[in-house]
Amino acid sequence: MAVNSRPARAVLGQNQYGKAETRVVRITRDGATHHVRDLNVSVSLSGDMDEVHYSGSNANVLPTDTTKNTVYAFAKKHGIESAEQFGIHLARHFVTSQPSIHRARIRIEEYGWDRIEHGAEGAHSFVRTGQETRLAQITYDGERWEVVSGLKDLTVMNSTNSEFWGYVKDTYTTLPEAYDRVLATDVSGRWRFGWADGEEQAPHWDESYEQVRKHLLQAFAETYSLSLQQTLYAMGARIIDNRPEIDEVRFSLPNKHHFLVDLEPFGLKDDTADSAVYFAADRPYGLIEATILRDGCEERIPADLTNL
Amino acid sequence: MAVNSRPARAVLGQNQYGKAETRVVRITRDGATHHVRDLNVSVSLSGDMDEVHYSGSNANVLPTDTTKNTVYAFAKKHGIESAEQFGIHLARHFVTSQPSIHRARIRIEEYGWDRIEHGAEGAHSFVRTGQETRLAQITYDGERWEVVSGLKDLTVMNSTNSEFWGYVKDTYTTLPEAYDRVLATDVSGRWRFGWADGEEQAPHWDESYEQVRKHLLQAFAETYSLSLQQTLYAMGARIIDNRPEIDEVRFSLPNKHHFLVDLEPFGLKDDTADSAVYFAADRPYGLIEATILRDGCEERIPADLTNL
Amino acid sequence: MAVNSRPARAVLGQNQYGKAETRVVRITRDGATHHVRDLNVSVSLSGDMDEVHYSGSNANVLPTDTTKNTVYAFAKKHGIESAEQFGIHLARHFVTSQPSIHRARIRIEEYGWDRIEHGAEGAHSFVRTGQETRLAQITYDGERWEVVSGLKDLTVMNSTNSEFWGYVKDTYTTLPEAYDRVLATDVSGRWRFGWADGEEQAPHWDESYEQVRKHLLQAFAETYSLSLQQTLYAMGARIIDNRPEIDEVRFSLPNKHHFLVDLEPFGLKDDTADSAVYFAADRPYGLIEATILRDGCEERIPADLTNL
Amino acid sequence: MAVNSRPARAVLGQNQYGKAETRVVRITRDGATHHVRDLNVSVSLSGDMDEVHYSGSNANVLPTDTTKNTVYAFAKKHGIESAEQFGIHLARHFVTSQPSIHRARIRIEEYGWDRIEHGAEGAHSFVRTGQETRLAQITYDGERWEVVSGLKDLTVMNSTNSEFWGYVKDTYTTLPEAYDRVLATDVSGRWRFGWADGEEQAPHWDESYEQVRKHLLQAFAETYSLSLQQTLYAMGARIIDNRPEIDEVRFSLPNKHHFLVDLEPFGLKDDTADSAVYFAADRPYGLIEATILRDGCEERIPADLTNL
Repeated sequence: MAVNSRPARAVLGQNQYGKAETRVVRITRDGATHHVRDLNVSVSLSGDMDEVHYSGSNANVLPTDTTKNTVYAFAKKHGIESAEQFGIHLARHFVTSQPSIHRARIRIEEYGWDRIEHGAEGAHSFVRTGQETRLAQITYDGERWEVVSGLKDLTVMNSTNSEFWGYVKDTYTTLPEAYDRVLATDVSGRWRFGWADGEEQAPHWDESYEQVRKHLLQAFAETYSLSLQQTLYAMGARIIDNRPEIDEVRFSLPNKHHFLVDLEPFGLKDDTADSAVYFAADRPYGLIEATILRDGCEERIPADLTNL
Repeated sequence: MAVNSRPARAVLGQNQYGKAETRVVRITRDGATHHVRDLNVSVSLSGDMDEVHYSGSNANVLPTDTTKNTVYAFAKKHGIESAEQFGIHLARHFVTSQPSIHRARIRIEEYGWDRIEHGAEGAHSFVRTGQETRLAQITYDGERWEVVSGLKDLTVMNSTNSEFWGYVKDTYTTLPEAYDRVLATDVSGRWRFGWADGEEQAPHWDESYEQVRKHLLQAFAETYSLSLQQTLYAMGARIIDNRPEIDEVRFSLPNKHHFLVDLEPFGLKDDTADSAVYFAADRPYGLIEATILRDGCEERIPADLTNL
Repeated sequence: MAVNSRPARAVLGQNQYGKAETRVVRITRDGATHHVRDLNVSVSLSGDMDEVHYSGSNANVLPTDTTKNTVYAFAKKHGIESAEQFGIHLARHFVTSQPSIHRARIRIEEYGWDRIEHGAEGAHSFVRTGQETRLAQITYDGERWEVVSGLKDLTVMNSTNSEFWGYVKDTYTTLPEAYDRVLATDVSGRWRFGWADGEEQAPHWDESYEQVRKHLLQAFAETYSLSLQQTLYAMGARIIDNRPEIDEVRFSLPNKHHFLVDLEPFGLKDDTADSAVYFAADRPYGLIEATILRDGCEERIPADLTNL
Repeated sequence: MAVNSRPARAVLGQNQYGKAETRVVRITRDGATHHVRDLNVSVSLSGDMDEVHYSGSNANVLPTDTTKNTVYAFAKKHGIESAEQFGIHLARHFVTSQPSIHRARIRIEEYGWDRIEHGAEGAHSFVRTGQETRLAQITYDGERWEVVSGLKDLTVMNSTNSEFWGYVKDTYTTLPEAYDRVLATDVSGRWRFGWADGEEQAPHWDESYEQVRKHLLQAFAETYSLSLQQTLYAMGARIIDNRPEIDEVRFSLPNKHHFLVDLEPFGLKDDTADSAVYFAADRPYGLIEATILRDGCEERIPADLTNL
């Protein structure tokens, strides 16, 4: 096939636009006790957008600046009960109030804050938890809802109960088998709720998050691991088995290699029974990614959580 | 529908694994003149991987360490003619040499180096170009090839010839219309080649990259812009019209806002005819994403180049 | 003065070298209960290093690779009782074992790990605390010790009890006074110990760290703030008053601005008694830096914790 | 010495404050040809600031918001002839206009832009150069000026003409000697001008920057290197010898290790005469830092360009 005989006309495909990374913090005052919700909200809208691409006419375009304003206004008007509920308010608003907008996708990062314990009166002092960042993505097309929650940058380690052996060996295989290794990863996970119909009772989003987090941490800790894939599956299956509101889980788990340092050249006995010294490597790293589904449910979370 | 009546069995869905971010630099010596190719290579393999997830058996698993070794060995054996050609060698190898592996996807970042001009003999001194990072993704399932090239972090600006007005106004719209604004973005683009059959003559990858880059920069510079969407489409259409080897282009363009500073409170005339002063904002930013297709071709580049 | 009449000879000034960012993790096994210390160690050595700069002779140079090996070997041999104690072992070693090395400075970042609570036996599962990074710098010249401990990236916020008014107003001042604002910062702090003589009993480094951290958090929470400078001073003075082992404290506190969003254009009452909505800004930010000293002690921590 | 007998009174030491990272872009229009200067400006002021720390009184405090406004206003009023000249205007203003301010330090990062070559009329389209970031720091105390210029993130590599051998070997030394290695670094450099008296003719800042950059690149390329220290010194001495306006240079050079990959396990001949394959490592890295002075001049650039 001669490529230069192809028709030269370009057409528009999938497109979306909106304001990304609006940083909104809401303080709620309950007397001297304050509560904080701290979000990073990104709005993506799709609809009748051919003309703005072809001719630059903005007649169907709600400005991204307006989507930012809407985030702030809704934080005041509706409050932020949870990242998911806040996203639902926003997505419904854009799709139902603008005829030219047929789909809205709201992505939210949430940062946690703990209270600082101290002797003074009042409770309005906070310290960022700093562990994982909580994630939520709400998509609405006027008919169906899709809610995906998740987290990233939750770094975990098992200092034993991990092995790796019995693998394929080819011309380029030099790795020795390991019968007791450190297993560490930065958990990046997403989970999709079965809830899709706005008429149905929605899950309790915050409680669900806390429970999923607890289950995945416990599955990580309790799984005697012969491969990071096995640990990943155990984490996902634990969630599917315990949380009926969730249909699909996807994890992207970098294998943060901890290489045992060879101490023999320094005249030290390499005795790991009492203590072991590791080099924590940056790159390259193994990357293990998989989806775990409730039997009979569809795969909808994209395979690539990470960028091209 | 009662969510708690769902069957509790978890099953494995899409999965892939491999070594990410292997940093390989190849120096080729042509007498006193050296040439450098500097890549960051990530391998993702899929195939008969149920058991490693369910029981931890690694009998079908080629270690990620081996995929790293293969990258280094192939850099020596086959050289690095281009990122795309190098990825083709790797993908073919994994799929054809391992019965348990049915699909390989190779992602590559390439960093450019210019020569340092100086008076000494020889030509082995280099400075990183620092502008964009070049990208390539090669996928092979034993039958069909998919090659997507791209770039990220190419920052461009037009200091005039950009307007934004005539948009939808709702309760939350406060943005004033703009008749002469700065338009700046970090170009993140991907383009898919029509080449899919290994028997067919492949494009000249490096030349294609240089030409696509030139066309998108020129389209950015030459488009009098009424919206960033219009500029985006012009960039994509220019590529489709000029490069017959390319079937599909996707851009993700943050609108790097440059807000004109209000200087009136300081007793300064806000006269932009001679000079103008802008605040370059970080967040939030507009984010404009779209695919431009050769008429009749399929959309295959995922809509989300960015993470959830 | 004519600059071109100056003598053209270049001479060597202050210099130091070593391996930076050696990532060492030590696991200590106390039966089924494991303990982890996770450090990032940078070594800087100074001494008789003129020749390596002038002629390239390495006759006085202990390779940086060797300083890396020493970090690993010492983690096995001496253990890691604390970052500070580990740095003392290393600094003493380099200065006393190498005649050409007259000063050693060891910088350490430490990452904290909490245990994952779960039902299985054993205690070898951990999650990164993720809040602040602990810092230590140990300097030894063969006679005197200087130990500076610190932390960075501890993000805190008071949602009230902060005001800002009564400041200087000039031609360029437009800021309205604030009588109830959010005060948030990423604490970056360093504190220097009085301990300088290796014969003297050293402080209990870990306990000292925990107490300093507690005092600075409580001072942040309990100070009704009229300026971030006042809060900074209160944090430092609280440490000086409560921790006799510490002579000097320096803080670098970015004022992470939380701007109250003007909701009036959206028809919303801007009533912060019940709830308030803020835009958390990235850049620019106020930056407040100061040293607090025990009366009579010298200033030794450099003014600039941040880069040029 | 009993530490708990020390007096418990805390006093204020060195302090400074101001707005950091004000991002200002100035477009100058010369008909259809535009010029851009793109800066990130950080202001630090010191003076009579005891009260704001002790009691929170802001009576001597020019708000950081005002220093930000001043940056924008001066970009319009005075233009941005160069980063250094712009910083001189700002520093002089703060010290001479505010009685409570006795010292001003202005730090500037500058981002470069090249023109996009294209066929349309006008010249208002730019692409970020992306190589190094240019730096300037201007300090003024009402009497003396200190101007330090610099750059960071200029990545360079020699693919040959570098050796490393003849070094000290101790118990922990395992490194084999190298007779032909890759030498790569991210240049971070600062250089101080002799100009200190505002009455004296100032250097041509932009031309000086270009010449210093050229000399350091050429010295890097032309030095046959037996150690990175030797290369560092050659770069500094070349500047001192060629640029009479400069009295002092400091470099912080990470040794970006490129390790030759051992290909023998894969049956490949390790013949580097034609080509060589390297693993580009991230951490740890050697870090070589030194000052080169014009003979007779004082050292004033702090030893630590990098953070504790």
